[in-house]
Amino acid sequence: MSVTIILGSKNDLQIAKGAADVLRELGISYSVHVASAHRTPRRVQELVEGSDADVFIAVAGLSAALPGAVAAHTVKPVIGVPVSGKVNLDSILSIVQMPPGVPVAAVGLDMGANAGLLAAEIVALKDPALDTKLKARRKEMHDRVLADSKEVSGL
Amino acid sequence: MSVTIILGSKNDLQIAKGAADVLRELGISYSVHVASAHRTPRRVQELVEGSDADVFIAVAGLSAALPGAVAAHTVKPVIGVPVSGKVNLDSILSIVQMPPGVPVAAVGLDMGANAGLLAAEIVALKDPALDTKLKARRKEMHDRVLADSKEVSGL
Amino acid sequence: MSVTIILGSKNDLQIAKGAADVLRELGISYSVHVASAHRTPRRVQELVEGSDADVFIAVAGLSAALPGAVAAHTVKPVIGVPVSGKVNLDSILSIVQMPPGVPVAAVGLDMGANAGLLAAEIVALKDPALDTKLKARRKEMHDRVLADSKEVSGL
Amino acid sequence: MSVTIILGSKNDLQIAKGAADVLRELGISYSVHVASAHRTPRRVQELVEGSDADVFIAVAGLSAALPGAVAAHTVKPVIGVPVSGKVNLDSILSIVQMPPGVPVAAVGLDMGANAGLLAAEIVALKDPALDTKLKARRKEMHDRVLADSKEVSGL
Amino acid sequence: MSVTIILGSKNDLQIAKGAADVLRELGISYSVHVASAHRTPRRVQELVEGSDADVFIAVAGLSAALPGAVAAHTVKPVIGVPVSGKVNLDSILSIVQMPPGVPVAAVGLDMGANAGLLAAEIVALKDPALDTKLKARRKEMHDRVLADSKEVSGL
Amino acid sequence: MSVTIILGSKNDLQIAKGAADVLRELGISYSVHVASAHRTPRRVQELVEGSDADVFIAVAGLSAALPGAVAAHTVKPVIGVPVSGKVNLDSILSIVQMPPGVPVAAVGLDMGANAGLLAAEIVALKDPALDTKLKARRKEMHDRVLADSKEVSGL
Amino acid sequence: MSVTIILGSKNDLQIAKGAADVLRELGISYSVHVASAHRTPRRVQELVEGSDADVFIAVAGLSAALPGAVAAHTVKPVIGVPVSGKVNLDSILSIVQMPPGVPVAAVGLDMGANAGLLAAEIVALKDPALDTKLKARRKEMHDRVLADSKEVSGL
Amino acid sequence: MSVTIILGSKNDLQIAKGAADVLRELGISYSVHVASAHRTPRRVQELVEGSDADVFIAVAGLSAALPGAVAAHTVKPVIGVPVSGKVNLDSILSIVQMPPGVPVAAVGLDMGANAGLLAAEIVALKDPALDTKLKARRKEMHDRVLADSKEVSGL
Repeated sequence: MSVTIILGSKNDLQIAKGAADVLRELGISYSVHVASAHRTPRRVQELVEGSDADVFIAVAGLSAALPGAVAAHTVKPVIGVPVSGKVNLDSILSIVQMPPGVPVAAVGLDMGANAGLLAAEIVALKDPALDTKLKARRKEMHDRVLADSKEVSGL
Repeated sequence: MSVTIILGSKNDLQIAKGAADVLRELGISYSVHVASAHRTPRRVQELVEGSDADVFIAVAGLSAALPGAVAAHTVKPVIGVPVSGKVNLDSILSIVQMPPGVPVAAVGLDMGANAGLLAAEIVALKDPALDTKLKARRKEMHDRVLADSKEVSGL
Repeated sequence: MSVTIILGSKNDLQIAKGAADVLRELGISYSVHVASAHRTPRRVQELVEGSDADVFIAVAGLSAALPGAVAAHTVKPVIGVPVSGKVNLDSILSIVQMPPGVPVAAVGLDMGANAGLLAAEIVALKDPALDTKLKARRKEMHDRVLADSKEVSGL
Repeated sequence: MSVTIILGSKNDLQIAKGAADVLRELGISYSVHVASAHRTPRRVQELVEGSDADVFIAVAGLSAALPGAVAAHTVKPVIGVPVSGKVNLDSILSIVQMPPGVPVAAVGLDMGANAGLLAAEIVALKDPALDTKLKARRKEMHDRVLADSKEVSGL
Repeated sequence: MSVTIILGSKNDLQIAKGAADVLRELGISYSVHVASAHRTPRRVQELVEGSDADVFIAVAGLSAALPGAVAAHTVKPVIGVPVSGKVNLDSILSIVQMPPGVPVAAVGLDMGANAGLLAAEIVALKDPALDTKLKARRKEMHDRVLADSKEVSGL
Repeated sequence: MSVTIILGSKNDLQIAKGAADVLRELGISYSVHVASAHRTPRRVQELVEGSDADVFIAVAGLSAALPGAVAAHTVKPVIGVPVSGKVNLDSILSIVQMPPGVPVAAVGLDMGANAGLLAAEIVALKDPALDTKLKARRKEMHDRVLADSKEVSGL
Repeated sequence: MSVTIILGSKNDLQIAKGAADVLRELGISYSVHVASAHRTPRRVQELVEGSDADVFIAVAGLSAALPGAVAAHTVKPVIGVPVSGKVNLDSILSIVQMPPGVPVAAVGLDMGANAGLLAAEIVALKDPALDTKLKARRKEMHDRVLADSKEVSGL
Repeated sequence: MSVTIILGSKNDLQIAKGAADVLRELGISYSVHVASAHRTPRRVQELVEGSDADVFIAVAGLSAALPGAVAAHTVKPVIGVPVSGKVNLDSILSIVQMPPGVPVAAVGLDMGANAGLLAAEIVALKDPALDTKLKARRKEMHDRVLADSKEVSGL
């Protein structure tokens, strides 16, 4: 099982890193590529059609066509991460408002790590050990909230 | 493999039907429930924890907390469908802008069918026959566009 | 009479402090907790059901489900404070646009102090001395505006 | 214990009726008035200062100054109901974004009934019987959701 | 002829200064006051009713009720200046979207100087010398644009 | 004293009629013209420069450049009325957000009558009898609100 | 000289007709096709690369990737027409906010005819007769505005 | 063949420089001017009517009337560049939402370089050598993306 991460621009590297870090932490193999729906459309097609990834993560800002362009070439699940800029509603709406028949799974603005986690949840359907890791991760988050709660209780 | 569809309100039935129709057409088993993050929070928890679904679809309008509430109780993939109303940005942003650690896969406003398709794409990772059906469906869509193109060419 | 303040994340501490400061100043007892609608949903339920607070204040950003999640477990008044971020309309709309039957009292973006005051106004219905304090506070604000007006009159 | 409902315009009567119906159902006394922050500002002041209400509900559209104008004359809790129109963000933001020191409790667009319920939750702090009624009402809502869930399960 | 400038908060002084500077430059007498629609509603009323100003300028952010509150007490022209903050659409819409019968003249976000100019244009209807000054000011602006154009022509 | 009303398009006639009706009722002379900032820019200039109006009212939808185009040719007060359409924020923001030095007085979406009233308030600075009429009109509005209040009191 | 019009969906035919009508009226040859950036990405590429059109017009709603997808395969001018729906800002922003290096010329929501005119203006650079026709068309619009102005002058 | 670049204000120089740099790089002659739709409307008219440019680029923020004002005086293609500020939707919508009959080609917020490129694409219709340069430029962009992709592949 593996995940292909595609960035629309090298500028979005920090957001993509959020996804890559989660995948590495969970032991899921991944590859990272820059490919642009507008500057290298054929490269997007080749990347997607040549990939044996189970899930795609596409990161893009502004008119953010990349997640949809990836989805156009595969029936594998595609996760789209909108990148923040001067308007923000542009990348969010471009990724969420996909037309009938070609879904993209949108996560929150700049939420690369959530894209990584969603990819992991999908991959985990075939990998019970991963499911266990995800539950452990949730447990850790849960415990950290409880610890935080203790810390602020003296406010 | 199965999908659990949860509606925040019976009013959203038409949107949920969009998802159910796609799943039935593709031969994926599913169940449909009404459960509200605000009116029946424990019921949401029970439904999710008691379900052996591989994927959840949650449909909700307004402040649209249901998809996040479902995601809070599972590490299975959760797809959120925002329902249109008087504001629209409310349900879209509530579902997209999930905090770190608990992702939801948002699809477009009222796009129940796309939620069904995304669920199918996820389930297909374990079901090669389904993958074939999804590709055939894409092919049909593709061919319909070509037919439409012929039809309008005399404009 | 007491108020339970719940933060969705330790990051929102400064906003919660705004509420706590007002309550302390007015002599209203309160407790502060971190609990997340998405990372610790059961903890939210336990906190709310185990609390004998008269009023709840819930502080949350992004999809901001916490105030609604608190309201789902109590018929006590729940005040929601949206926290600012990259979009802002997300947390505002998520908290304001609650569905029929489960109201939340939304105050302004990052307005922790106003949440504290609104809680005090509610608690004051059973505490005439507090009512007097609130009126005195208003009088002070009023007088400060008059003093400010003198100061700027030479502009 | 009683609630004063003020409408900015007779056009908003249907929304105010939503609040009044809930209050009547719960046995809370109330009165209904039309008074405009812009057309009858002194009348708003007289109404508020002359009222012995425990809670105020103010219903207004467009620039929606009424809830704030009511809050300016009292330290009792004031609930604001934004009314929908051609823009919607106007009345929502005008009511939510109150300045420091004078809070208003905003509920959702056109959500008169939720304003009534929130008022009831506040009043119930001094009225245990009302608390019981509110819990019963929640229970009914809860059961209706379960019934709805059965109804849709054959979808 | 004179102009009364009212600020909702001392924080908006810089914006009010923009208006005052223009009025002073044009030889129009003015006075500056802080008065809040929410913290000192009666003071707003007294200020407006006790003023013999020909035009009012009201500067306010957030829910920005002040311009409307001023207009509620006078049939003199009232100019409203929305102040920028975390949302911006809040103060703009609150000031623009006044209900039928009580108009406010909204100018742009933080545009205190434009409010001063608009007040001057109104006052100039009774003061031909001022009309001449306004035309001279426009001429200067016009010439500055031409000079700027020369400066950039070598780009 | 007179007012020149300019419509960007004959489609906006109903909104302009709102202004004309108020002016006629108040005995203020006015003229109505269609002139477009984009289709007849020179006509706008001629109309404005050839007019001896004291106040201009410009009504426009979409990118709504007309009020600014009128203001560009005069130092008389210009009132802009945004017209509703598919977006609404377009005409509102285009009219409100004028650059430094050339103010426009924006009123609410489709609020032709408020534009007429604001024009009357401006004209009244030179016409005490008109001031009296405006106060009488406010008194009528005030009384109608009181009558409305009686009517709804039995709700 | 010719123009290729591409619709993202047959549903957008009415908008495309607006463009086609203008082109036919002006004697510019054109062809109309349905091709979807998401359902037939390769067809978009073939259409664009196989076309000898001087200008492309792409019509699309929702996430509206089509104009950008066309622009990705050509250095000919591409005009994008956003189509209205439940959100509207989605298609507008998706088409306007193109990334550096691959421009699209966005026209207004549903403004097919303006896309046709813009295409004609571009084509006219090589066709003086067309330039004359465009000026005549402007003159007609101009005269119609003057006629409209006469018609409303009795208001 | 040449391009006329007009800035609404010297403040927008950096954005205009983006366009000028691209044109210079591609060997297209251009001139740069400051002219304001509101402060120097006649200058805009003279500039446009006196220009023998094939394409106009107009750069403006806030209510951003300049591109439309330029388009009002020519049937040559006009490209509008919205400039970012405190609201952003103001300049974007003002430029995109042009009325029927007078199109403007809107590019993205602050995207001066894209305006330059779009102008070059238009000019290239009459200049095959330029077409070749544009394709070479696309090729370079394409290759840079591939190089970037290599660089990030080790993430």
